[in-house]
Amino acid sequence: MTANEKIQKIRKLMIKNKIDFYIIPSSDFHQSEDVGEYFRCREFVSGFTGSAGTLLITREKSYLWTDGRYFIQAEKELSQSEIHLFKSGMKDVPTISEFLKNNLEKDNVLGFDGRVVSCREFSAYEKICEEKGCSIESRFDFAGEIWENRPPLSAKKLFLLDIKYCGESFKSKIKRLREKMREFKADIHIITSLDDTAWLFNIRGRDIPCNPVVLSYAVITFDECVLYVGKNKITDDACKYFSENNITIKDYFSFYDDLKKIESSKNVLLDYERINSAVYNNIPYEAVKINKTNPTQDFKAVKNETEIKNIINAHIKDGTAFTKFMYWLKNNVGKEKITEIDTAEKIYNLRKEQEGFIETSFDTISAYGSNAAMMHYTASENSNSLLLPKNLFLIDSGGQYFEGTTDITRTIALGEVEKEMKIHYTAVLKSLIALSNTKFLYGTKGYNFDAIARKPIWELGLDYRCATGHGVGYLLNVHEGPNIFRMSAPFVMEENMITTVEPGIYIENSHGIRTENEILSRNTFKNEYGQFMEFVPVTFAPIDIDPIEVSMLSQEEKNYLNNYHKLVFEKISPFLNSEEKEWLKIYTREI
Amino acid sequence: MTANEKIQKIRKLMIKNKIDFYIIPSSDFHQSEDVGEYFRCREFVSGFTGSAGTLLITREKSYLWTDGRYFIQAEKELSQSEIHLFKSGMKDVPTISEFLKNNLEKDNVLGFDGRVVSCREFSAYEKICEEKGCSIESRFDFAGEIWENRPPLSAKKLFLLDIKYCGESFKSKIKRLREKMREFKADIHIITSLDDTAWLFNIRGRDIPCNPVVLSYAVITFDECVLYVGKNKITDDACKYFSENNITIKDYFSFYDDLKKIESSKNVLLDYERINSAVYNNIPYEAVKINKTNPTQDFKAVKNETEIKNIINAHIKDGTAFTKFMYWLKNNVGKEKITEIDTAEKIYNLRKEQEGFIETSFDTISAYGSNAAMMHYTASENSNSLLLPKNLFLIDSGGQYFEGTTDITRTIALGEVEKEMKIHYTAVLKSLIALSNTKFLYGTKGYNFDAIARKPIWELGLDYRCATGHGVGYLLNVHEGPNIFRMSAPFVMEENMITTVEPGIYIENSHGIRTENEILSRNTFKNEYGQFMEFVPVTFAPIDIDPIEVSMLSQEEKNYLNNYHKLVFEKISPFLNSEEKEWLKIYTREI
Repeated sequence: MTANEKIQKIRKLMIKNKIDFYIIPSSDFHQSEDVGEYFRCREFVSGFTGSAGTLLITREKSYLWTDGRYFIQAEKELSQSEIHLFKSGMKDVPTISEFLKNNLEKDNVLGFDGRVVSCREFSAYEKICEEKGCSIESRFDFAGEIWENRPPLSAKKLFLLDIKYCGESFKSKIKRLREKMREFKADIHIITSLDDTAWLFNIRGRDIPCNPVVLSYAVITFDECVLYVGKNKITDDACKYFSENNITIKDYFSFYDDLKKIESSKNVLLDYERINSAVYNNIPYEAVKINKTNPTQDFKAVKNETEIKNIINAHIKDGTAFTKFMYWLKNNVGKEKITEIDTAEKIYNLRKEQEGFIETSFDTISAYGSNAAMMHYTASENSNSLLLPKNLFLIDSGGQYFEGTTDITRTIALGEVEKEMKIHYTAVLKSLIALSNTKFLYGTKGYNFDAIARKPIWELGLDYRCATGHGVGYLLNVHEGPNIFRMSAPFVMEENMITTVEPGIYIENSHGIRTENEILSRNTFKNEYGQFMEFVPVTFAPIDIDPIEVSMLSQEEKNYLNNYHKLVFEKISPFLNSEEKEWLKIYTREI
Repeated sequence: MTANEKIQKIRKLMIKNKIDFYIIPSSDFHQSEDVGEYFRCREFVSGFTGSAGTLLITREKSYLWTDGRYFIQAEKELSQSEIHLFKSGMKDVPTISEFLKNNLEKDNVLGFDGRVVSCREFSAYEKICEEKGCSIESRFDFAGEIWENRPPLSAKKLFLLDIKYCGESFKSKIKRLREKMREFKADIHIITSLDDTAWLFNIRGRDIPCNPVVLSYAVITFDECVLYVGKNKITDDACKYFSENNITIKDYFSFYDDLKKIESSKNVLLDYERINSAVYNNIPYEAVKINKTNPTQDFKAVKNETEIKNIINAHIKDGTAFTKFMYWLKNNVGKEKITEIDTAEKIYNLRKEQEGFIETSFDTISAYGSNAAMMHYTASENSNSLLLPKNLFLIDSGGQYFEGTTDITRTIALGEVEKEMKIHYTAVLKSLIALSNTKFLYGTKGYNFDAIARKPIWELGLDYRCATGHGVGYLLNVHEGPNIFRMSAPFVMEENMITTVEPGIYIENSHGIRTENEILSRNTFKNEYGQFMEFVPVTFAPIDIDPIEVSMLSQEEKNYLNNYHKLVFEKISPFLNSEEKEWLKIYTREI
């Protein structure tokens, strides 16, 4: 069935149910960034495979919004369909809300499945519908109705995360959480975001590929902790653990019914950004809702010392795998047939050799030449390029280990590289160094940092259409907040946050460059100006020195790179064979 | 009378009038940053001469809040009084609001003169008083009551600014302003900030030293423009001009009575940040108040092409005066007796020689050695240091010309300079260059820029306790918004804004360094990423190369400085005698 045929089927359901505009977002019931196969309705209908995007179907037309990471990819994947692409954030492109404001007519009905629309989005739609004299119908999952052979919900077993990995017991975490509930004057706290429940309960699972979370909801009071989770997911060990920790287990599907039973006199703490609108609408109207970021989000962003020690170990393993990969690639490209998919398999296999590796932390982006201009490209059988001994190759990949989550990007010269590409490569490197090398005062916010990274790229009249970096979970989602380097991000950089720095340059139909390290924020010293802080890199893998235009680097930048490479050699060389070690010595030499 | 004696007198008035806490801010009736002598109540009572600060007197104690520019100065000036200094923005220092929240007791009365308290502050105080069961009494000017021989209100003549200077007629400006009023659905717009009235009406005056404004209020409707101004200030020319432009003149003191006559059905646009609370409280309660930044604030921040051409001319004159000053100082220090006050007189006299010079744009900061550690130090007979042929000398000064307002700081080596000072000097230079040399995308905000400048100074574990720079008026206030480089400033940098860049390092009891240029934002080119922009310097005066630690500069930084100095030589050398020109050649040489 083509996208256009699926849209036609949905239109028939829309007509039957008197719906004029129907929205299909990319979410699951938990507002997860990545979703299990069961939830991939937007992808199923539109054919656009990127992780972020919203489809809107009207009686005559259809539209898909996605962000700068996916413009090129979405253009390709939607080209055979009727769907019009809206490039979010570009000049004169309306937001979905603006589009609805301009196009809804009196008495129109806006439809969606309330379980996959966040509470915040619901409020925005509600406001627009009120203004325009329209109504909302949120009971229908039309994509589900037309989806034959829809994959089932995940039934994978959950597992417990030992204290030697997580560094803080559930009892300690719940105590801190209840202190926050007290501070916010909340009687009940509802958590539906899967990384929050996984972190709080020290559990992990395999319900979403690359995201080791457990499909679950939690309801916390001062007397009780209830975890709603499929009972088929619970091992004997887990059963014992839950019992010892006074965690009540209830079935995943009983959650919404329990919400209806909440007493009207209670104050309920919930995060409108993270709960779906069906959660909100099932809680008695009279109960006071306290809308705050889940305290667990801020808790888990600040890593404890056990986690940090483990994370560094995970990165040594990951860097070892990556270094072996880079050695193999540099030495074999042009000699044997290597495709983009082959490289993704190779890096996966090398990671798998590392003790404690579980799975990749996101779909590997393995992109040669002009494919790398698509920021979040995934090689498919159709697009799969053969690597030639020239030009640049970009690989963005990571692993989930018991000791933590990794995310690394390197762009590698496979032979001769054009001058312009070298200039771009070096500008990206300057950008990475500029931010990584910033000493700063406590209180500095995301938006203060971002332009420091962009400056060397702006210098060339270029930019990258995404944040400069994001927080990384501990054996959890590779993207987590609140720490994000973005032009508008207001979070304060706390000590012991792990954030990526991943500037890039993407030239359509030509090349794409990104270099990404994870950096750890650390306090240095305190004086009359305040608490000074610095970043230390926790990613250990060579940054290819072949495509560097050395004349573009200042001595300070060279020093940073040389020191970084010295560190990489120290950390990684003990785990290499003698040829690899020789090679690493050369690729971490001073420039 | 000592500060303590004055405070005792005020306490008697407080007891008599049943007031428990009495606030004396630094304002005039127009929320001006600098105020005429008539309005210097806080200075009169406390003895603290800095431009910013708020005094709070209770029955037993007294407190003064000031910001980082003035910590050292305020400590000195308050040392003989009972007044406790609160260093705003430092850790564990309460704001005035926090202090009131913690210290007001039920039924206390908070007092101040409502005309010198902004509407926004009044609201904050009102809210606190409500929470604490207290009340406000805003009719009394106790400082005025105890001030014998208080200076009278200024009666200086106003003057008209020709179109060749201002570049846009009043008629054009009022048309744009009324468009904004229409956009905001306002019937009446009240302007009380003096730089806004001066800009709008193309008038200037001498009512506040260094700030060429005219004591006035304005009330704008779609039919009428009323300017409330002392009739003794109006020349025949001005009278004719007002009449030709349909500007109704009313007496300055009739303003508050007219406010009471506003019809209740009207929508009134006013800027709570800029109007005083007596303005607000005199408008009928029922009238709808629209609180927005005065549109004229944003209008005047974006300079027109006539203004820009003039500003560059003004800076050539100013740079000529400064270059002559620097030549004189470098060649005469140690040979003749030169004090801080002498240098301020010298630079004033050199500026006075320039055609179109009116007055200084702020009190010259002429600070030798450790005096320069006080950011906004003014040399007095007591503190006036003799300049010796060693160490660093800081001079921050500017002029009001018909062709614009200037603000320049240079730190000059008078002979041998210690290594640490050279390192600090060079870090400040790196900071100036880092921000001045930033190419950026339209949309970049104040808070995105600020850390770019701070980075080289943070690198040394140091910081400066003020913004990195501020907007500059056109023959108007030397500080104007919305453009300000600050860690929290949300304004968007528009084309044709003039902003200072003035990073510094201030080491108490040792030295102070600041280097300040004004920069103009310009569009460069537009591409798929958006509108790119750059800064061009409009200040033309040598940056002393003697104290530079050359090894700390990258080639890019050296290139910037060398190009800047080439520009300075081109612009300034035609106006110098042959010895000065020879000297400038040497001081603008490539490094």
